[in-house]
Amino acid sequence: MANPAAGYHYGNAPPPQSYGGYQRPSAPYGAPPYGMLAPSTFAPGTDPTVIACFQVADQDGSGMIDDIELQRALSSYNQSFQLRTVHLLMYTFTGINTRKIGPKEFTGLFYCLQSWRGIFDRFDRDRSGKIDALELREALLSIGYAVSPMVLEILVTKYDKTGGSMRAIEYDNFIECCLTVKGLTERFKERDRALTGSATFSYEAFMLTVLPFLIA
Amino acid sequence: MANPAAGYHYGNAPPPQSYGGYQRPSAPYGAPPYGMLAPSTFAPGTDPTVIACFQVADQDGSGMIDDIELQRALSSYNQSFQLRTVHLLMYTFTGINTRKIGPKEFTGLFYCLQSWRGIFDRFDRDRSGKIDALELREALLSIGYAVSPMVLEILVTKYDKTGGSMRAIEYDNFIECCLTVKGLTERFKERDRALTGSATFSYEAFMLTVLPFLIA
Repeated sequence: MANPAAGYHYGNAPPPQSYGGYQRPSAPYGAPPYGMLAPSTFAPGTDPTVIACFQVADQDGSGMIDDIELQRALSSYNQSFQLRTVHLLMYTFTGINTRKIGPKEFTGLFYCLQSWRGIFDRFDRDRSGKIDALELREALLSIGYAVSPMVLEILVTKYDKTGGSMRAIEYDNFIECCLTVKGLTERFKERDRALTGSATFSYEAFMLTVLPFLIA
Repeated sequence: MANPAAGYHYGNAPPPQSYGGYQRPSAPYGAPPYGMLAPSTFAPGTDPTVIACFQVADQDGSGMIDDIELQRALSSYNQSFQLRTVHLLMYTFTGINTRKIGPKEFTGLFYCLQSWRGIFDRFDRDRSGKIDALELREALLSIGYAVSPMVLEILVTKYDKTGGSMRAIEYDNFIECCLTVKGLTERFKERDRALTGSATFSYEAFMLTVLPFLIA
């Protein structure tokens, strides 16, 4: 175990606040996991680019963006996103299984993806649209998550969809991988407030914690 | 909590041994999660039907069945299986991330799928190829797993791929759902030997427990 005085470290390199510094809203286990989001507005001083992107994405002008609208908006930035990745994004930025997000959640999601795109591009030096296993490890470290060789091996095996002999991760799978590692780690840390590196779950809490990340 | 003297119950109706009574081989966390299976043979007295099915599936006569061969064999029984479901099946019956299984693992898998097919058909009364949420709950209970309304809600939302307004689960998604609930519950129980209903994980053990069930 790491030095107990210092507390358990989930990442060796705590990232600057700008790296995916969004905090998932807490969703108590007693609350229904599915439901409607409270209406929100853009915070004063929000970058006009974010507001403009929201308005373009909100094609029906409802003030909310649904999964199809978000998929279309994200894909228009030269990134292909599967609907399951979009659902995982929405879950990450709302803490509930919803198919609509508002201005507040969109803002968090916008900055997070912008930051992760930058990290991906930094490691994708040859602009192939893919990064390899070691680069994935470094990229996860950049967003604050240190994964062991065994965890890395599982992630690469799961997210390598290139079909080639050289294992590589494409951008949308990189985003899914980041969302999964971030989400599971944050959920774990919520149960390890003393940073001991261990957490206790009831069976119900365990299932409700992990199932939202498994399948989409 | 349930009566402590009786121990925590993960299922209200412990199924007869024939209902998916297969026990996952233990995979200690120190062992590599990927690797080769030890060679195996059919146990004396194995049903000749199982051996014949294995030999038909083993198209290259290698004595092992790979993921493509297994997918083809399963699909030939009038069931469509995605490769991701096949990989989850292989993981369930080996405890490691492998792309090949031998006679021993095939036998376990054969009987388990035969049993689950029977359960699915029992609830799919109108032979639509789909079951609804309440039937899914009953079916999971039949194989020994009692899920709460909130867990059921997540499962149905995740595994309903029918796209209709009536939520329903098709056969291959039912198998994925059973494999996920069975696998996660068994892994949890391995850490709750006293049947208290709670289990403690290190961060590494938590990630290594959960990530193999990611459907990617």
